[in-house]
Amino acid sequence: MLDLTLLGTGGGMPMPNRFLASLLINYKGNKILLDCGEGTQVSMRICSTGFKSVDLILITHTHGDHLNGLLGLLSTIGNSDRVDPLTIIGPTGIVDAINGFKILVPYLPYDINVIEIKENEDFIYKFKEVEICALYVSHSSPCVAYSFYLPRRRKFLREKAEELNIPTKYWKSLHQGNPLNLNGNVINPEMVLGENRGGIKFSYVTDTRPLNSIKDFILNSQLLFCEGTYESLDKLDKALKNFHMTFEEAATLALKGNCEELILTHFSPSILNPGDYINNAQNIFSNSYIGKDHQSIMLSFNEK
Amino acid sequence: MLDLTLLGTGGGMPMPNRFLASLLINYKGNKILLDCGEGTQVSMRICSTGFKSVDLILITHTHGDHLNGLLGLLSTIGNSDRVDPLTIIGPTGIVDAINGFKILVPYLPYDINVIEIKENEDFIYKFKEVEICALYVSHSSPCVAYSFYLPRRRKFLREKAEELNIPTKYWKSLHQGNPLNLNGNVINPEMVLGENRGGIKFSYVTDTRPLNSIKDFILNSQLLFCEGTYESLDKLDKALKNFHMTFEEAATLALKGNCEELILTHFSPSILNPGDYINNAQNIFSNSYIGKDHQSIMLSFNEK
Repeated sequence: MLDLTLLGTGGGMPMPNRFLASLLINYKGNKILLDCGEGTQVSMRICSTGFKSVDLILITHTHGDHLNGLLGLLSTIGNSDRVDPLTIIGPTGIVDAINGFKILVPYLPYDINVIEIKENEDFIYKFKEVEICALYVSHSSPCVAYSFYLPRRRKFLREKAEELNIPTKYWKSLHQGNPLNLNGNVINPEMVLGENRGGIKFSYVTDTRPLNSIKDFILNSQLLFCEGTYESLDKLDKALKNFHMTFEEAATLALKGNCEELILTHFSPSILNPGDYINNAQNIFSNSYIGKDHQSIMLSFNEK
Repeated sequence: MLDLTLLGTGGGMPMPNRFLASLLINYKGNKILLDCGEGTQVSMRICSTGFKSVDLILITHTHGDHLNGLLGLLSTIGNSDRVDPLTIIGPTGIVDAINGFKILVPYLPYDINVIEIKENEDFIYKFKEVEICALYVSHSSPCVAYSFYLPRRRKFLREKAEELNIPTKYWKSLHQGNPLNLNGNVINPEMVLGENRGGIKFSYVTDTRPLNSIKDFILNSQLLFCEGTYESLDKLDKALKNFHMTFEEAATLALKGNCEELILTHFSPSILNPGDYINNAQNIFSNSYIGKDHQSIMLSFNEK
């Protein structure tokens, strides 16, 4: 199970009525922060997320509306008594950016480990059981999309275990895939495990034009967070010029990617009420929704 | 006349219910920003101050709650089409800090001129007609207080000018202090000007313990903005440890400095409602008030 909190849904610049687009992912109390514009730490306070247990920060790109809040957040995490190292992952430019921050915040009680994602190389990072993939997209500076996959264990078939007279104290280890030597008989986990089951997949795509490669990257996501910087195709010229998407383009991406649900985010400051334009997305992909600041979403395994 | 806008009144860290302490000073449409924590630009938007006409930024010290918002604000000022150079003034450390920002925001359409105030040297800076002085105070990092003085012109005595048969077209130049040669007779401005008149003085003191030197620095201010990080003398141990003041100490400073009015600011996040404790200040200095985010104050010349 993954708990997600949409810390903000704004793009471009910090505004009075909307926090900048950012997502907090909570997996068993360990947290991943995705993007951190100015004010993200304030939104974290409103959502009472805490700071100490942020173990990983993912940055889509080094534009200020996705990065500047890190300057203060690094200090705030330090003030939360964190001493464990923190990992920051981002595209080309992230090492230089974090080095810049380190000049401004030279004394932190924890180490920062920065990983710069290479272009033209597959990127997979394991956070606990969660597999994180990154894909370079098309923006005015190096920018990546992220997808997250939490695999699901195969079902433990207790009736099979009972048939084989396996004492219950060995069940957990077998479920974890470890063979068992029971009085000279080797019990293979395969003998007591059900079929493979799909895990939880969700994706986060922002600050890019729609690309075919994104469609493959987000394929079959239970949930797609996608930028809808502009509310309608009428603004396509701006979307093209600034390397962003319209609501229609985001919905088309969700459709092509066979996603189950789309949450739009990263709204231009010019959009006062994104809900006024949701039809532009729903006419293409009915399960389209407007992201709301401080919205919580719980993702569970789909099948039984 | 000076128009002041209290952009925020919080100290320590950005919080949901209070912007970080910052002041915007508007003199004839030219603006001075004093301190810039995370979120200051959002408060500027709420107050519709505009960004392009910020000509001068004064920083009290380089702690994050007074500085971090500059990272995004410099870009936002750039996006406002400003091309005129911008001056940033601050204490020891400001040059390094701004150099750090320049790494993170390398492309701005205007030049930044940084002035680092030297310790043990008088500092006076002239912004239009406003004289700005700085004083090193006592904090855990180099920190300065600022005072502002707008002199008032002497009154033009029109009855004297009429007695001397000076045509009205020369009055303005005489009022500005220029002598006049009228048909061979030299008219000295002293002949048509009234007595010296007091100008507008206000001061801004934050992140320091009270000092005797501050009392002299703020002397006779029409208005003193002073930090009241802690609400009562019960917190004196914290005030001493963290180099801050209590409400009582700020009020005592206003009293000793013969100020006309005190506005408290830079409240600790632990103070939910500073107004609950205003008596702690008013018992010492009756013209004490709690600063409010987005409050506007107009300072006019006192005497006629």
